[in-house]
Formats: sequence, structure tokens, C-alpha cells
Amino acid sequence: MLLGRVVGTVVSTRKDPGVHGFKFMLLKRVNPETMEEGPFVVAADAVGVGVDEFVLYATGSAARQTVMTHERPCDAVIMAVVDQWEIAGEQLYEKVNPESGIWDGG
Amino acid sequence: MLLGRVVGTVVSTRKDPGVHGFKFMLLKRVNPETMEEGPFVVAADAVGVGVDEFVLYATGSAARQTVMTHERPCDAVIMAVVDQWEIAGEQLYEKVNPESGIWDGG
Amino acid sequence: MLLGRVVGTVVSTRKDPGVHGFKFMLLKRVNPETMEEGPFVVAADAVGVGVDEFVLYATGSAARQTVMTHERPCDAVIMAVVDQWEIAGEQLYEKVNPESGIWDGG
Amino acid sequence: MLLGRVVGTVVSTRKDPGVHGFKFMLLKRVNPETMEEGPFVVAADAVGVGVDEFVLYATGSAARQTVMTHERPCDAVIMAVVDQWEIAGEQLYEKVNPESGIWDGG
Amino acid sequence: MLLGRVVGTVVSTRKDPGVHGFKFMLLKRVNPETMEEGPFVVAADAVGVGVDEFVLYATGSAARQTVMTHERPCDAVIMAVVDQWEIAGEQLYEKVNPESGIWDGG
Repeated sequence: MLLGRVVGTVVSTRKDPGVHGFKFMLLKRVNPETMEEGPFVVAADAVGVGVDEFVLYATGSAARQTVMTHERPCDAVIMAVVDQWEIAGEQLYEKVNPESGIWDGG
Repeated sequence: MLLGRVVGTVVSTRKDPGVHGFKFMLLKRVNPETMEEGPFVVAADAVGVGVDEFVLYATGSAARQTVMTHERPCDAVIMAVVDQWEIAGEQLYEKVNPESGIWDGG
Repeated sequence: MLLGRVVGTVVSTRKDPGVHGFKFMLLKRVNPETMEEGPFVVAADAVGVGVDEFVLYATGSAARQTVMTHERPCDAVIMAVVDQWEIAGEQLYEKVNPESGIWDGG
Repeated sequence: MLLGRVVGTVVSTRKDPGVHGFKFMLLKRVNPETMEEGPFVVAADAVGVGVDEFVLYATGSAARQTVMTHERPCDAVIMAVVDQWEIAGEQLYEKVNPESGIWDGG
Repeated sequence: MLLGRVVGTVVSTRKDPGVHGFKFMLLKRVNPETMEEGPFVVAADAVGVGVDEFVLYATGSAARQTVMTHERPCDAVIMAVVDQWEIAGEQLYEKVNPESGIWDGG
């Protein structure tokens, strides 16, 4: 899987029936150490994400292993919203929890 | 999936029976922020596209999940024509609608 | 699929039984606009090609969707000989037809 | 497969049901000759690894061939902890064996 | 498939049961024209190779199409030892045949 940040959306009306109902999100890959952003990818959203959230996405045939994407012409799927990550024991990112107001991410 | 622009066509007579009837389109990957164009790919057309349209294409085994490409030796398929995309809430592209004459893309 | 030019052959005697009878062709990927050549790949030949022909090849699991390569340890197959391609309405390549003697490729 | 070093972890609560129970490890690809580290990848852990261990990971559909990852939306799995490797007959890495205290890696 | 040179081995004791019995070889991709070596990959050995041999390896799901690797978490397999290759009609490599003593490779 790869870490990405949701940056936008793509809308299509004329499309293969297999992807009807899909929400196409525009992601940028993220380097979890430097937060530098890499290439764009368009992924189907299996978990319900919003712009600016950090997510994990799976590519290739793995992208068809969610209920929503099963046997669909889909090669990238967002399958998790990221709460936090750490490298070498140091927490580099923690998602803001709007209920607790806690934020101590990097 | 990746965003691409249809730039041309490829024609072949002598080919594997599995791809008879395919229309091979020549695409260039597109960076949705800068509109810079990347490498070429040849994709089967599952939706009926024309040159200069922006499309989504799926690669790998996903490319065999349309009715047309099922169990065919095909590793890239155009599965959607793009109407519009936005990044960080800003619409960067909108397809011209020839009926309404509206065009406010970037 | 990707456009390639056949540049040579690879011969192997000691090999997995699954690839017995395969003809391994050495390809270079081709940029259809500049004709620059990219990285090498070795592909099984499903259509009967010769050195210097331009071809389409499929990679990944698609490469096992021809009769010859079905369920074989093969990740790249030549599935079409290219007759011509065009970009933005301009024909950049046309295969010489030895019978007609016509050649008006780029 | 590729050689990687485990550098951290990624935590997610809101995710596809198919990846419930997965431990997501953050890896960096490693060049076994120079020990230079390459891009990050997030892999499911099928063997029980710790930070700083060198591992082999498989990507693509191979990542769904462990008991834990079978038919899950997972495109990278750690399937082995590395004890040692050698290049041109020279041992460049050997895992410290805490019981024997032996360490003669590079 | 890609051309590689076998450069070493990787040993693992703690691993997924699916790869028990595998011999993991360390390969470097080889440019067949310049003999320059590219990135490393770790491949299962389906044919019995030795260090310094030139081989063909298949990646992705193709790597599970040998008897040894069937349904295993394996994404790269050596499926052929290379005897010779030629580019543009010129033989650039021929394997030494220890019985005949003939060597006329480049």
C-alpha cells in the first residue's frame, strides 16, 4: 500500500457500467518522512474520505478486493484513513480528532 | 486509475484473435495540476472516445474487467470520459458541453 | 499496451517446462512521437514477428491471455504487429506493404 | 521480492473490513550492496517483524497469497525476515542472533 | 520478462509457510546491449541457477505459474537460464559451454 493525501475529485458521466456509483478521488502520494508529495493517482473511495485526509491506497488487483470494487475495472482503491504513523519510534503524524481537540502531529 | 488525454490511434491487422475488434487509442498521461503530459500508453477503448478528450484509464488486470476486454490480452483500458476535476476546491478542468456551449474550464 | 520495436532474440535451453516452445523476442519500447527508444523487455511472441517490426505488447497478467501463453510463467507478450499510428490527425508511421510497394510513413 | 528495512508503523481505525486486524508496517526498500535506502512502502505483516529488521516483501497479487492476506485489498506483504545475504560469495549482512551473540554482518 | 544476472543469495528462516523450500536468488537487471546493470530484485529459483549466470525472470502474477511457485506469495521467478542473445543480427552473448569449451560471446 502507499500513503497518499486526498487532494480533489474527478467526475465522469460517460463511463463503463462497471464503475457506476464510484467516487473517484484524486490523490498525491506522500513521503511519510519529508511530507513531500509525489505523483497523482485516481482511486475509488471504499471508506468515505474527504479532501486533505491522509489515506492508504492499494493498487493493482488488490484494488478489486473491496465489496464496492469487486470485479470492476478499478486499479486503485482507498482502503483506509490514516490516524497516525511513526518512524523510528517517533510519531510524525497524528490525525486531528475533532471531538477531543487533540492535535500533536508533525 | 490515471488521467490521460487521447492523442491518437494505433492500427493493427496481424494480431492475436483475442484483440480483434479493439480500438487502440494512444494516450498521454496528464498531470491534473500543471497539465504537463507524461509517457504514452496504448489503451483499448471501452467507452467510445475521440482525440483530445480527457479520460480515466485503468491498467493491469483491471483492464480486463469491462465487457469488451474480459479475458483478452489487454493491460490498459479507457473506462471513463472525464467531465471535470477539481483540486483543493478549485475546478481546474471542465469538459465543453457542445449543447450548452458552457465552458469554464482552466 | 506499449509500442515497441523488435530488436533481437533470446535463446534458452534450460527453462521452466511452462515456457517450452516460446520464442523470446527482445524489444525496445518506442516513443511514438519522437521515435526515441526506451528500456528493453523480453516478450513471448504470439503473432509471429520479425526483427525491426513495430509491435504492441501487453504486460502483467494480460500476457497470459493468449492461447500460447495461457497459465504460463510469462509477463510480456507481443499481441499485435502495428500497421500505422497517428497523433493529432497526422500519420507518423506506416508499415511498408511489400506487395503494394507503398511507403509513406514518417 | 524486494529487500526492505522496517522503519515504522501506520495506524488506521476507519478502514475497509477486509484489512481489519492487519498490522501495517512502514518499509524502506534497501539496496543490498550499498545499503542505500529507497522509496517507502506500506506492507501488511504476515510473519511478525520489528522495527529495524531486514525483510523480504512481495507486491501485487502475490501479496494476497498468505493465509492472513487471502482475498484482502492488500498489495504488499512482508513474507520473510532476512537472516543473511551474500553477493559474489561475500556475506554483506548477517542478522544478529541474540542467543549466540554472533554478529559479523557488514 | 527481463534479463538479469544472478549475483547472490538471500537466506531466511522465519518466513511465511508458503515460501518454505524456496531458494531466493539476488539478481541485477542487465541491459543486453551495454551490459550495464540495473536495480536488484530477489527471485525464487525455478530452474536451478548459479551465481553469474544470465537468466530470464518473470514478475507479477506470472511468477506463480511454475509448479514450485503455484499459489505462493512470490512475485518474481527465474524461469530460464539464457544461452545466448542477439541484437540486430549480432550475437552479443553466448553462454560458455563447459563441455565444448566454445566461447565466442561478446
